Amino acid sequence: MTDPLTLTGVIPPVVTPLTDDGEVDVASLERLVHHLLDGGVSGLFALGSSGETVFLTDPQRDQVLEVIVRSTAGAVPVIAGCIEPTTPRVLQRVRAAERLGVDAIVATAPFYAIVGPHETERHLRAVGAASSLPLLAYDIPVCVGRKLPNDLLLQLASDGVVAGVKDSSGDDVAFRQLVVGLQDEQIEDFAMLTGHEVVVDAMLLAGATGSVPGLGNVDPHGYVRLHRGAADSDWDTAHKEQERLVRLFRIVDSADPATAAGATRGIGAFKAALHLLGVIDSPAVSLPMRRYDADETGRVRNQLERAGLSVRR
Amino acid sequence: MTDPLTLTGVIPPVVTPLTDDGEVDVASLERLVHHLLDGGVSGLFALGSSGETVFLTDPQRDQVLEVIVRSTAGAVPVIAGCIEPTTPRVLQRVRAAERLGVDAIVATAPFYAIVGPHETERHLRAVGAASSLPLLAYDIPVCVGRKLPNDLLLQLASDGVVAGVKDSSGDDVAFRQLVVGLQDEQIEDFAMLTGHEVVVDAMLLAGATGSVPGLGNVDPHGYVRLHRGAADSDWDTAHKEQERLVRLFRIVDSADPATAAGATRGIGAFKAALHLLGVIDSPAVSLPMRRYDADETGRVRNQLERAGLSVRR
Amino acid sequence: MTDPLTLTGVIPPVVTPLTDDGEVDVASLERLVHHLLDGGVSGLFALGSSGETVFLTDPQRDQVLEVIVRSTAGAVPVIAGCIEPTTPRVLQRVRAAERLGVDAIVATAPFYAIVGPHETERHLRAVGAASSLPLLAYDIPVCVGRKLPNDLLLQLASDGVVAGVKDSSGDDVAFRQLVVGLQDEQIEDFAMLTGHEVVVDAMLLAGATGSVPGLGNVDPHGYVRLHRGAADSDWDTAHKEQERLVRLFRIVDSADPATAAGATRGIGAFKAALHLLGVIDSPAVSLPMRRYDADETGRVRNQLERAGLSVRR
Amino acid sequence: MTDPLTLTGVIPPVVTPLTDDGEVDVASLERLVHHLLDGGVSGLFALGSSGETVFLTDPQRDQVLEVIVRSTAGAVPVIAGCIEPTTPRVLQRVRAAERLGVDAIVATAPFYAIVGPHETERHLRAVGAASSLPLLAYDIPVCVGRKLPNDLLLQLASDGVVAGVKDSSGDDVAFRQLVVGLQDEQIEDFAMLTGHEVVVDAMLLAGATGSVPGLGNVDPHGYVRLHRGAADSDWDTAHKEQERLVRLFRIVDSADPATAAGATRGIGAFKAALHLLGVIDSPAVSLPMRRYDADETGRVRNQLERAGLSVRR
Repeated sequence: MTDPLTLTGVIPPVVTPLTDDGEVDVASLERLVHHLLDGGVSGLFALGSSGETVFLTDPQRDQVLEVIVRSTAGAVPVIAGCIEPTTPRVLQRVRAAERLGVDAIVATAPFYAIVGPHETERHLRAVGAASSLPLLAYDIPVCVGRKLPNDLLLQLASDGVVAGVKDSSGDDVAFRQLVVGLQDEQIEDFAMLTGHEVVVDAMLLAGATGSVPGLGNVDPHGYVRLHRGAADSDWDTAHKEQERLVRLFRIVDSADPATAAGATRGIGAFKAALHLLGVIDSPAVSLPMRRYDADETGRVRNQLERAGLSVRR
Repeated sequence: MTDPLTLTGVIPPVVTPLTDDGEVDVASLERLVHHLLDGGVSGLFALGSSGETVFLTDPQRDQVLEVIVRSTAGAVPVIAGCIEPTTPRVLQRVRAAERLGVDAIVATAPFYAIVGPHETERHLRAVGAASSLPLLAYDIPVCVGRKLPNDLLLQLASDGVVAGVKDSSGDDVAFRQLVVGLQDEQIEDFAMLTGHEVVVDAMLLAGATGSVPGLGNVDPHGYVRLHRGAADSDWDTAHKEQERLVRLFRIVDSADPATAAGATRGIGAFKAALHLLGVIDSPAVSLPMRRYDADETGRVRNQLERAGLSVRR
Repeated sequence: MTDPLTLTGVIPPVVTPLTDDGEVDVASLERLVHHLLDGGVSGLFALGSSGETVFLTDPQRDQVLEVIVRSTAGAVPVIAGCIEPTTPRVLQRVRAAERLGVDAIVATAPFYAIVGPHETERHLRAVGAASSLPLLAYDIPVCVGRKLPNDLLLQLASDGVVAGVKDSSGDDVAFRQLVVGLQDEQIEDFAMLTGHEVVVDAMLLAGATGSVPGLGNVDPHGYVRLHRGAADSDWDTAHKEQERLVRLFRIVDSADPATAAGATRGIGAFKAALHLLGVIDSPAVSLPMRRYDADETGRVRNQLERAGLSVRR
Repeated sequence: MTDPLTLTGVIPPVVTPLTDDGEVDVASLERLVHHLLDGGVSGLFALGSSGETVFLTDPQRDQVLEVIVRSTAGAVPVIAGCIEPTTPRVLQRVRAAERLGVDAIVATAPFYAIVGPHETERHLRAVGAASSLPLLAYDIPVCVGRKLPNDLLLQLASDGVVAGVKDSSGDDVAFRQLVVGLQDEQIEDFAMLTGHEVVVDAMLLAGATGSVPGLGNVDPHGYVRLHRGAADSDWDTAHKEQERLVRLFRIVDSADPATAAGATRGIGAFKAALHLLGVIDSPAVSLPMRRYDADETGRVRNQLERAGLSVRR
C-alpha cells in the first residue's frame, strides 16, 4: 500500500495515445511514461480526464493500466481514475485497478444521476470501503456538475475515508479553506493536489502538496523545476517557471473555437504537442473530439518553440 | 425497423426492479411490463434515466433489454437508452441494443467530457450512422449539462439522422419552437415526446406526439386516458386527468429532503409505489441512492390512495 | 384598489418608446397605449423588463407611469414594475407608483445581492406590507439569478401578501404545480400570468389566468384572439393563433447574434416592429443595447408581412 | 487625476454603517475611515458590494462618498463604485462621483438586463468615455451573472479604457492568464486587485498588485502586514498572516445558514465584528438582510478573540 505521504510533487494525468483507428497505442504510451519519468515526476495519474477515461472501453482502460504499471515498474506510484457515474460502476473499476496493481484510486462525485451531498457521501464511503487502496476524491464540477463540499471532505478525511483531493474545481477560495481546515483538525499526510496548471505556484504557496497538470505531459521538466523551487521556498524561480508554463498552456487556444470546445481543445492540444515532440506516434483523439488540423498544429508548434521545447516533427 | 410514426402515445421509461442484493429482479420486471401493457401504453423506453441505466453494469443492461423485449413480444415498440458519456461507449451499447432486438435507440449529448455544439453534432451523427434503427435524441440538460440546440436538432431531423426527440429539458419555449420549425421544414413523422409528467396535456396541445412519463410506471391507465382525451380534442378530460396526475406526482416529495436529492426522490418514489401496488417485489434502488424508509413509504401510500390506486401492501 | 380578479386576459409589458437622444417619447407612448387598448388588452404592465425599466432614470420612470395612467384613463388596470435590487430601493418605487395612480405593483426577488429564500421572503413581505395595492411576484430567474420557490409563493399567497405571479421562469413544471397547489389551498382570485409568448395556449390549458406577452406590443389582436379562444374552450383556435405568433416571434432572431444578445434582440425587435408598424417614431433603445440596423430591420419587416400585419414604413 | 500606479496595496471595500432606522451613520463611518487609515491601507473603495451600494438610495450614496472623501482628506485615493444595471444609470452615478471628488470609478458588467460580450463592451466603453477619472472594471459574476472575458479586458486595457480590474470572479486561472497577457501586451501600471480575502498571498505571487478584502474592514493591519510581506518577497510572513486571516474570515460562518444567505452572512459578520471592536455604533444592515442575533454575535466574538483583536463590547 502506498503511503499517501508520497503523493506530493508533480503527478501528471497521463494522456492515452491512440492509433488512428482508435486503439490504445501501447508503444507510444510506453514512450510517454518514460518521457514523464525522465522529466522527474513523482507519480502518474492514469485514466484521468486528460487520459480520455470516459471515452475508453473497459478492456482499453485495463490495457492502459497494465501498460502504465508495467512501464513505471515501481519507480513512482501509479494512481488510477475509477470514473463512472454511479457507485456500482465505480466499484467495477476499483476491482480492475486493484487487480492491475495500482497504488491508489481516484473517484469523483456521481454524475448524470441527480444527487445531493448525502448521495455523494454514500458514494465516496462505499468506494472507500470497497478497497484497501488509498482513495483520492476528484473534485471536478465542470464535468460532474457539483462541487465536493468542504465540510464533507473534512469529515471523510477525518474518518480516514479519503487520503487526498485532486482539485480541478477552479475554486481557490474553497481550496485554501480546506487546507486550513485540515490543519485545524490536525489531519496530516493528506494529499492536496491542484489540477490547474497555470496556478501551481500560487496553490503551492496556499498549501497544495503537489500538482496534477495536464500540461505536465508536454513539459514535465518545467513542472518539476517549478515544484522544486516552491519546495525550496525559492518562490521567484517557481513564479518565473510558472509564467513560462502559462504561456505554453496557450497551445489549447490553437484550435478554432467555432468547431472545437473544451475537451477537443485541451486533449487535442496535448496530443498535437506530444506528437510534434516525437513522444507519441499519432495525435488521434476519440470521438466526438477531433484532432487538430494543420493550421492548428502549426500554432501549437509555434508555442512549443517559444517555450524552448525540442520539436521533432 | 420501426416506423417512427408509431412513436406516439404513452411510452413510459421502464423502471428496473432490483433484488435486495442489487441484481435485476427478472420476475418483477416481467410483471412491470405486463402492468404497463395492460395499462394501454404505446411503447416502452428501456434503460432511461428512470430505469437506472447509469447505475447498471453492461451485463445487467443486456439482461434488462432481453427481458423487456421478450415480455413485450412485439405488442408495442421497445426503445432502448444507449446512455454513456462519449461516442465509442455509446456505440458499444448500440450494438448490444441491436443484437437484443429493440426497435429504436436513444442517445443524449455527451456528458462528463466538456463539449460544444460541434462535438454534439459529431456524436449524434456517428451514433446515427452506426445503426439501422431509428435514433431518438434525448434532451436532458439537468443530467448532461447542456441543452440540444434547436438549430442542430432541425438539421439532424432534416438529414434523417434523428427520428425524434425525447424532451426532458424543461424548456417549453424551445419545445414549441422546435414543433413549429419542423412544420416549416415539412418534416413529418418526427416523434416529439415530452418527458415531463405534469405538463403532458399542455405539451400535447403545443404539438407533442406523445409522452415518456416516469410516473407512467405507477399509473399507466391515467396517462393513457390523458393521451386519448387529447387525441380526441377532449381537452377538458385531458386537463382533469393531468391535474389528478400532478397530485399523484407528489409521491416524489415524500422523501426527507435533508437526506435525499433528485434521483433518490424520483426513482425511490416510483419503486416504493410499484412495491405498494404489488407490481415489484422490492423497492430497492442502486447506490448511492437509498430506498424510502417507513415514514416516507407511508406518505407514498397516502398519495396512491388519494389518487384512487389499489394499494396491495 | 384593483380587484385581482380582473388580472386576466392579455396584459402586455408596455415597451418604452425613446427619442434618438434617449428621452421618453411621450407622443409615441400615447400612441402605443391606444394601439394596445384598441387591440383589446385587459391590462397594461408598465416598467417591466420589456419596458427597459432598469435602463431608465427615476424621473423617466415616473414620466412613463404618468403617461400610461393618463392615456389609459381607467379603461383597464395599469400595473407597475418596481424593479430594483433590494428592499429599500423597491420601496422608493412603490411610493412613486402609488402616487402616480397605478392599480397594482410588481416586484422580483432581490438581485445583485446574494440572497436565499429567507431574504427573498423578507423582501416580498416588506414590499407587500408597504403598499395597499395588490402585489404581483415577478419570477424571472434569467434576470435575477434565482427562481421563486413554490412553497414560498404558496405561503405568501395564503397570507395575502401576493395577489398573483408574473411567471417568466421558463419552468412550466413548477408553474403547473403552483396552479394545482393554489387549488388545493383553496386560494382563489390569484393571478397566474405567463410571460412566455410562445406557449400561452399551453399555459392557459395548464391553468394560467392570463398572459404578459412582450410580443403583444406588436400584435395585441392576435393575443386577444388566442385568449378568447382558450376562454371559450376553443383550443383549436387558440392553438392556431399561437402557432402564427410563434412564427411572428422570430423577429427576435433577426439580429446578428455575433453582436446582439438577449435584451438587444428582444427589445430591439419589438421596437423595430412598432416603428415599421407606424406606432412609434423611433426604434431607439437604451445603451448598452443597440438598435436594429437596416438588414436586421428588413428581416423584421419580412416577418411582419408574413404574419399579415400592416407595415407602414 | 489619480495615477493608477498608486492602486496597489490594501484597498478595503468600506462597509457603510447604518443607524437602526436605516440611515447612514456618519459618525461611525468617519471612525471606520480613521480605523482603516490607521491600519495603513493604501486606498478606500467606497460603495462596493460590501458597502451595501445596491441597498442605498442615491442621496445616501452621495452622503457616503462625501463623508469618505472628507474624512480621508487626500491621505489615500478614494475609488467609488458606480454600480447600476445599465449604462444610463451608471452614468448618473459617475457624474455624482466626479462631483464629490473621488479619484477613480468602478463599474461592473450590466446586470438584470440579458447581455453578451458586445453589450458589455459598449457599456464599459461608454462609461470610460464619460469620465476623466480612471475606470476599474469590477468582475463579479456571482452578482451580475457573467464573467468579464479576458480578451475584452485586454482590449479595453490596451485602448486605455480601463485602468485596472477588481477581481471577485473566483477564477484564479483567468486572473493569472490576464496577468501574463498584460505583460505580453506591455501594458503597465494596470491595477490587478483581488477581491478574495483568503487567497491574497497566492494572488500576489501570481501577479496581483493589490487586494480589496472585505475582511480588511475588520483587520486592516493584518492585510497590510500580509501585503508588505509579499512586497518584500517574504512569502513566509505573507503566508502565515494569510492563514490567520483565513481563520478570522470564519466570522461569516457564524450565521445560521437556515435563515441567512451570502449577503447577510458576509455584511452581517463584518458589521457585527466592527460593532464588537467599537468602530461602529450599530450592526444594523439593510433589508432584506438581517443583523446577527446574540448567538451569532457570540460566535463572531470568539473568532475575533482567537485572532487577537481587541473586542470592546
